[in-house]
Amino acid sequence: MDKALKLNTVQEKPGILRSEAERVTGFAFEAAMETLAIEEPLEIQLGYGAQGERAVKSISVTMRTPGNDGELAAGFLINEGVIRDADDIDRIAHAKFDGSTIQDGDDSNVISFSHRSRNNVVRVELFADVSVSLANLQRNFYTTSSCGICGKASLLALRTVCPPRQPNIFTMSTKVLYELPARMREAQSVFNRTGGLHGAALFHSDGEMLGLREDVGRHNAVDKLLGREFLAHRAPLRDTLLLLSGRASFELLQKAVMGGISMVASVGAPSSLAVQVAREFDVALVGFLRGEHFNVYHGLQHLTGLKAQKQSGA
Amino acid sequence: MDKALKLNTVQEKPGILRSEAERVTGFAFEAAMETLAIEEPLEIQLGYGAQGERAVKSISVTMRTPGNDGELAAGFLINEGVIRDADDIDRIAHAKFDGSTIQDGDDSNVISFSHRSRNNVVRVELFADVSVSLANLQRNFYTTSSCGICGKASLLALRTVCPPRQPNIFTMSTKVLYELPARMREAQSVFNRTGGLHGAALFHSDGEMLGLREDVGRHNAVDKLLGREFLAHRAPLRDTLLLLSGRASFELLQKAVMGGISMVASVGAPSSLAVQVAREFDVALVGFLRGEHFNVYHGLQHLTGLKAQKQSGA
Repeated sequence: MDKALKLNTVQEKPGILRSEAERVTGFAFEAAMETLAIEEPLEIQLGYGAQGERAVKSISVTMRTPGNDGELAAGFLINEGVIRDADDIDRIAHAKFDGSTIQDGDDSNVISFSHRSRNNVVRVELFADVSVSLANLQRNFYTTSSCGICGKASLLALRTVCPPRQPNIFTMSTKVLYELPARMREAQSVFNRTGGLHGAALFHSDGEMLGLREDVGRHNAVDKLLGREFLAHRAPLRDTLLLLSGRASFELLQKAVMGGISMVASVGAPSSLAVQVAREFDVALVGFLRGEHFNVYHGLQHLTGLKAQKQSGA
Repeated sequence: MDKALKLNTVQEKPGILRSEAERVTGFAFEAAMETLAIEEPLEIQLGYGAQGERAVKSISVTMRTPGNDGELAAGFLINEGVIRDADDIDRIAHAKFDGSTIQDGDDSNVISFSHRSRNNVVRVELFADVSVSLANLQRNFYTTSSCGICGKASLLALRTVCPPRQPNIFTMSTKVLYELPARMREAQSVFNRTGGLHGAALFHSDGEMLGLREDVGRHNAVDKLLGREFLAHRAPLRDTLLLLSGRASFELLQKAVMGGISMVASVGAPSSLAVQVAREFDVALVGFLRGEHFNVYHGLQHLTGLKAQKQSGA
């Protein structure tokens, strides 16, 4: 686990972490512990073939919330048509990075999953006589965005490809920040009518909207928005804030890092790995920006016009 | 374009379609034209190599809303670290299925994109001296869910792997339907606290909740939910309704089809391709299920207790 996240967070229940943050109402902030949904990659491996000819193939890596990984793997393989039904499955177990199975499961098809284990690889072993539609798999799957095998590997991969970052000296007025969601909504033609599109907008530190894109996929909206800036040779976008109409995931923070963006604000919640990327790469991160409220998960000093809230009864 | 969708929809603006639907308030329905965000696959191809040694590689297929495809491709390739910046790009153009470029672009890097063309392949041609990080690409990308090159190809692929479906004889009381979102929310432990997780729940036609799963990825929540049923040998799930806390995409409808589910209800909007799958595979589809309102995009006859609304002034 990354040091920064380890120091500031507590895992208390499956699927969630609590993390240090600042809660802002109006123009006053106070320290708070905020709940984050855990986001980590899961690699699904398939073991197949006759006795003596067994092979293992990595089928998919998906960003998921740990828990019920055996169900996830079985559901994925059947829903995607790789195997026909559960009768094809001999056993499902978490596996080590190097591919060796560390738990052989019990009499049932699914092992119990401890969210505290850092097991992010699950192996589905098929019976020897099962034939697999791997050709279909290649054709039918599509890729989205980057990854790794654990949050740490994802961050390492991002460090490798990430352009050099300058010190983050971006500032945004809190008053202006509160105006941005309405400015984005006004500019969104399609979203308002269908409710079916994610919006992503880029704002200058003075509040000017530099661009807006909408898409059924939030990662596509951000790729379109940044692609426009890349093609106009305007990156790195150090003097900009990226506003997201929905939630902030690892994938979206990664794109912000690649674009050199200094602050990300989301109307929805950030995931654990999004917060981790923000802290590691020093991107200021605001979540739950609604009305005159938001949370700051990293980089409070980049917001101007805020003061500490008086303690009630102090 | 699929016949069913063609007959019932009108495309009037980039990014959206209007489709026949029934609008339900309380226990009365009326016919209406509802707006849908368009969802279609885009294949991104990379042309690279020295003169005389040029190669073309398919890099990614993503479900996107058509429009700004050149920006999307450029943003994707740079954000994922495949190329360094826009200076690596010679030109971007839509290409035919067979890979031959049909538009060579003009002086700018990006061709204009007509949403009415059915161009779902975009080719990014790099300058001859640009080296590409394709090794990184393999390692860094992860796959999610199924696809094709156009909506029609996606539907064909689904037809190939989809188990045989029986006639849909499922019915759900409208009164019970209205109670389901609250039942799901009550059962959701994590979602209520973080706002960061998608929920998916399976209900019997009498309203009993058969299962619930939560995840940062909505496709994962559905894979977990159905994986549990597959492993318990309870599929096909003909007597069930799948409730989604967010939007309904192609991917989620595809999983419902694979599980043999008869009705899908989403709290958010369905995409154009989700509606197309519902009509093609006869899955009843409800969207915007909030309070005592919803829209029916397919299969009104599967809801009981409804009557046609009296025309005002008639």
